[in-house]
Amino acid sequence: MIIVLRPHASKEQIDQVLHEVEVLGYTPAPIHGATQTVIAAIGDERTHANLESLTAFPQVESVLRVQKRYKLASRESHPADTVINVDGVEVGGGKFGLMAGPCSVESEEQLMKTAHAVKAAGATILRGGAYKPRTSPYEFQGLGKEGLRLLALARKETGLKIITEVLSERDVEHVAETADILQIGARNAQNYQLLIEAAKSGKAVLLKRGMSERIEEWLLAAEYLLAHGNPNVFLCERGIRTFETYTRNTLDLAAVAIAKKESHLPVVIDPSQGCGRADLVISLCIGAVAMGADGLLIEVHPNPAEALSDGQQQVDFAGFQKLVASIQPFLQAVNKSAA
Amino acid sequence: MIIVLRPHASKEQIDQVLHEVEVLGYTPAPIHGATQTVIAAIGDERTHANLESLTAFPQVESVLRVQKRYKLASRESHPADTVINVDGVEVGGGKFGLMAGPCSVESEEQLMKTAHAVKAAGATILRGGAYKPRTSPYEFQGLGKEGLRLLALARKETGLKIITEVLSERDVEHVAETADILQIGARNAQNYQLLIEAAKSGKAVLLKRGMSERIEEWLLAAEYLLAHGNPNVFLCERGIRTFETYTRNTLDLAAVAIAKKESHLPVVIDPSQGCGRADLVISLCIGAVAMGADGLLIEVHPNPAEALSDGQQQVDFAGFQKLVASIQPFLQAVNKSAA
Amino acid sequence: MIIVLRPHASKEQIDQVLHEVEVLGYTPAPIHGATQTVIAAIGDERTHANLESLTAFPQVESVLRVQKRYKLASRESHPADTVINVDGVEVGGGKFGLMAGPCSVESEEQLMKTAHAVKAAGATILRGGAYKPRTSPYEFQGLGKEGLRLLALARKETGLKIITEVLSERDVEHVAETADILQIGARNAQNYQLLIEAAKSGKAVLLKRGMSERIEEWLLAAEYLLAHGNPNVFLCERGIRTFETYTRNTLDLAAVAIAKKESHLPVVIDPSQGCGRADLVISLCIGAVAMGADGLLIEVHPNPAEALSDGQQQVDFAGFQKLVASIQPFLQAVNKSAA
Amino acid sequence: MIIVLRPHASKEQIDQVLHEVEVLGYTPAPIHGATQTVIAAIGDERTHANLESLTAFPQVESVLRVQKRYKLASRESHPADTVINVDGVEVGGGKFGLMAGPCSVESEEQLMKTAHAVKAAGATILRGGAYKPRTSPYEFQGLGKEGLRLLALARKETGLKIITEVLSERDVEHVAETADILQIGARNAQNYQLLIEAAKSGKAVLLKRGMSERIEEWLLAAEYLLAHGNPNVFLCERGIRTFETYTRNTLDLAAVAIAKKESHLPVVIDPSQGCGRADLVISLCIGAVAMGADGLLIEVHPNPAEALSDGQQQVDFAGFQKLVASIQPFLQAVNKSAA
Repeated sequence: MIIVLRPHASKEQIDQVLHEVEVLGYTPAPIHGATQTVIAAIGDERTHANLESLTAFPQVESVLRVQKRYKLASRESHPADTVINVDGVEVGGGKFGLMAGPCSVESEEQLMKTAHAVKAAGATILRGGAYKPRTSPYEFQGLGKEGLRLLALARKETGLKIITEVLSERDVEHVAETADILQIGARNAQNYQLLIEAAKSGKAVLLKRGMSERIEEWLLAAEYLLAHGNPNVFLCERGIRTFETYTRNTLDLAAVAIAKKESHLPVVIDPSQGCGRADLVISLCIGAVAMGADGLLIEVHPNPAEALSDGQQQVDFAGFQKLVASIQPFLQAVNKSAA
Repeated sequence: MIIVLRPHASKEQIDQVLHEVEVLGYTPAPIHGATQTVIAAIGDERTHANLESLTAFPQVESVLRVQKRYKLASRESHPADTVINVDGVEVGGGKFGLMAGPCSVESEEQLMKTAHAVKAAGATILRGGAYKPRTSPYEFQGLGKEGLRLLALARKETGLKIITEVLSERDVEHVAETADILQIGARNAQNYQLLIEAAKSGKAVLLKRGMSERIEEWLLAAEYLLAHGNPNVFLCERGIRTFETYTRNTLDLAAVAIAKKESHLPVVIDPSQGCGRADLVISLCIGAVAMGADGLLIEVHPNPAEALSDGQQQVDFAGFQKLVASIQPFLQAVNKSAA
Repeated sequence: MIIVLRPHASKEQIDQVLHEVEVLGYTPAPIHGATQTVIAAIGDERTHANLESLTAFPQVESVLRVQKRYKLASRESHPADTVINVDGVEVGGGKFGLMAGPCSVESEEQLMKTAHAVKAAGATILRGGAYKPRTSPYEFQGLGKEGLRLLALARKETGLKIITEVLSERDVEHVAETADILQIGARNAQNYQLLIEAAKSGKAVLLKRGMSERIEEWLLAAEYLLAHGNPNVFLCERGIRTFETYTRNTLDLAAVAIAKKESHLPVVIDPSQGCGRADLVISLCIGAVAMGADGLLIEVHPNPAEALSDGQQQVDFAGFQKLVASIQPFLQAVNKSAA
Repeated sequence: MIIVLRPHASKEQIDQVLHEVEVLGYTPAPIHGATQTVIAAIGDERTHANLESLTAFPQVESVLRVQKRYKLASRESHPADTVINVDGVEVGGGKFGLMAGPCSVESEEQLMKTAHAVKAAGATILRGGAYKPRTSPYEFQGLGKEGLRLLALARKETGLKIITEVLSERDVEHVAETADILQIGARNAQNYQLLIEAAKSGKAVLLKRGMSERIEEWLLAAEYLLAHGNPNVFLCERGIRTFETYTRNTLDLAAVAIAKKESHLPVVIDPSQGCGRADLVISLCIGAVAMGADGLLIEVHPNPAEALSDGQQQVDFAGFQKLVASIQPFLQAVNKSAA
């Protein structure tokens, strides 16, 4: 780290900081500049104390980090793309993963119709929420275990793999019995206890970026999963919260390029949450595919106008077929094939 | 809700929407304007379907909510200020709650010294983290159960009440054995499973606003606590995430006025997290007190430069004494007395 | 507009609002709901008063807009794509415009080398700043008139059309003598006096979106240009300001789809400003092209490390050649050809 | 500045950067850390090149600034508070400035009634917009010169000093004939040509913070005014743009403390724009006063429901009287007296 001292700090004040840097386990290297002294603290920033606490001294103006805070998630530690094998379906490193299905599992009929429709259109992984995090306690909270039973049935009938969200540490075990991929939603993006539990499940984990999470923090959340022994982590960008009101969120497509530069983990885009409007979903999918995303997570419903959650952002079956057709030229342009 | 149709929607298209509004349980009232038709959907928006799904129809341009989504948290449902009795210490409705202590419990010596110091300065509630949510898995994660033991000891020695954060549903029960107030942190602000579990603990809950949570969403998270049977909820504003980089967060002091207008629950301000800089804490405390906050949550450490977490925003004992002295004229101006 | 009254507003209070709605030129249509009355105000919201002022009445909870605020910029008023003829180079409606050149014009040698290089690679329009808006008064402010002279020379030598920024109403006339397209920068995105002056110049105008401008506000700024008689307006998305610090801005690629849906004006993407990092520019260009952008605005410099402004986001000549090659498959996929 | 090299940069690559640092006018001081080399570039960052351009080298990971970019605006260059004498009315350094009046000047009757009312309540400076920056070209744009004539008349009748906004470089001269303080609005916060022109007018300038302007950028905009010879600059915080929708903007009250710490210039708060709701104005005024603001800028209208602009955030005469009474105890607590 770099400790920036205020202009006109006295020699005594500088010595105090140099001493404290040593106490905290670093080797200090002072540099006396034109107006200010800076101290480089040499050592591994990940394993030593965070020197930002030194701003507690009045003579310290700021502390600047030098090193990346993530290690296992970094491209440097693992130069090749991670390819995740989801019970036989590979995603990452040139293999594209198309995940689609309803926002919420609502009934057997709704789920089965959707599963058959998305499979016919080309999806290999079925999404569907059994446990739903809802902003209001008065909104539909999902079918719970019955939803999981229906998802298992859909897998049996169609062969599609299953991705579904887990909200509670206590549910991880039984959700993992059904799910091939555990989804961690944006509201739980920094719920580290849930991440640790999910890591231990042995199932792949799709980790959504939080609504106001910096990319560094998102990769550090992935680091929790990796550090707790689970190498099968999908990074999922689903839009960040900004001042814009035309869309529900602002989908940060640069995050595809950044995540793939900084990390080896596969990147999935959720355009449904990303904009909150069905009419923009195809365009965002095209952008995501062209920019190198490894997969898409799409909300599809037989009759969006009557959906029990987020109908405004779900596409119907015809819309999903059109979507799949629309992304084909771009998958070819990037040399990716749907699994 | 109000459904706005696109200009030039046909009669048939309008009828389709009118019919769907009825299917979804509302009574539709169409109004034919100069260029567009709007349909008012009459019914209780909290108990009926969310009509935003109607934007799935191409002729629907947008859907506007009319009603407030929170009920139990609203000032209308409970006109008087809620006063929370924390094992004998009242906070709310004119009684000011001063909560102070270290970011993390680090050792018996550190905690006891701090507890005595903040008590001597006037605090009535001791804060201290035993379980710490840290952005990186390589950072200090708290002392856990040993931290709780030390907090219980500090209560026994000083009589201070205890507030401490709970991160995991599984920890709620044993944290509640020690804590007088369970703190829900910003990263778990919409971790509804944890909220439900905390609600059932029987202890008061201090609910922080999420980093990018709208006030409506914050009150709806409080609604989860209230709807699950716990009336003793503190709302805590701790800064929101913006583009500004001078401070760690932007403390939204207007939230004091808004929360007290919209809700009856007591409002606590956390200026330490709110700005992430010890040098701004006193000024923010003064603003919060003047604007009517019911309490403050302050990070205090014997030696901030060596703190194991967030040293940059913790004040030392002299700083805390100065803080308490600085807010006195403003507490008097608003007719509040520290408990 | 829709005026939402508070629950339990009295008949007298409702009548007061109905009367005021009429005074302000609308026909009121009240609807009495389950808990609240709403009043639809029928009339053209663009030419009548803004009823948000009615929230001055204590019985009014909120006022919701129904109609779009832009008219000339809207797709409804002009269903076909606008194609802009820039002195013989067409952009829009299938014709792709590649605009490239240095952030700042620094010298004759720098500009001529760059002009020849970008032309050879396929650009048809040369960008280069003669007047530079700089955050600090101590930074390089551009060569001014000498910069314009060099741009005119580059046009004469290469045949490239010229786009350059105008900062001052007083400069519009002489900048327009040299420029084929006047660029309005993000800092002046809502400097309406400059927009009006630029509109009157007779030259095409490229209007950047402001750093925190909503799409509606961006289209309303375009409406200023159109309403003052200039139909040749490019909309340029250049990144919005968010909490993310990895990139300088967050490029909002959904804005391409939204602007093309809501408006007929051609949309240009500036990925250099959009991320502030040369290493992400190609990826963002690919996304923009795939999503249907009508043009790109790229910063190119012979030696970015020594650029007088924004070297970190400028690509060198080899980088630009690679960029042009990289977007070709995507231009083909969207059936667009570079002019 | 500090140049951070990537891990494993070769000696040759490091030498290349050391050489370039010298070319750009700094003295390089390399420090070889555990995993990475950093280079401190010694020299005045304000007068030398911005080294961020060095990230154009692949071996450079990032460039960190060390020094403050503002000089004349900094508290270091001018330790005492600046007190501005507005034609006999002093503001700053213990003298509080109460500025109030209508959002827009609408008519002689409206302005005169308001001027007398705000004077009677205790204001010393009259605000009123003659030129109005409006988001839509179809909204009321102000009375222009007739508005200025009315403001001059109000000054003559009441003795109040005048603050009014200037939107155009061309208007500065004639607006300055009437105004005692030129107001630069948020949309022009980084319109540097207008700032330079305003600086030269000889009148005091109130500089609003832009909607998404960092505090550093706001102080650098003030630096433009100071560097162009005008020492009489008010900094005005008027709310920043965030994701929150309950209020129009998020008033950043920490900015009072920060601006007063970093700078010697007086700080004025605009709570009307800051929240966009009349019902929150008093509470925000109290917070601002308590935290040390040097003045307030309040929108007051005889009949807000019929105001031609921003009626929702204007208080009426009774509201303004109440506001003035409400802040008295807090002015006393901070030892400030209204001028």
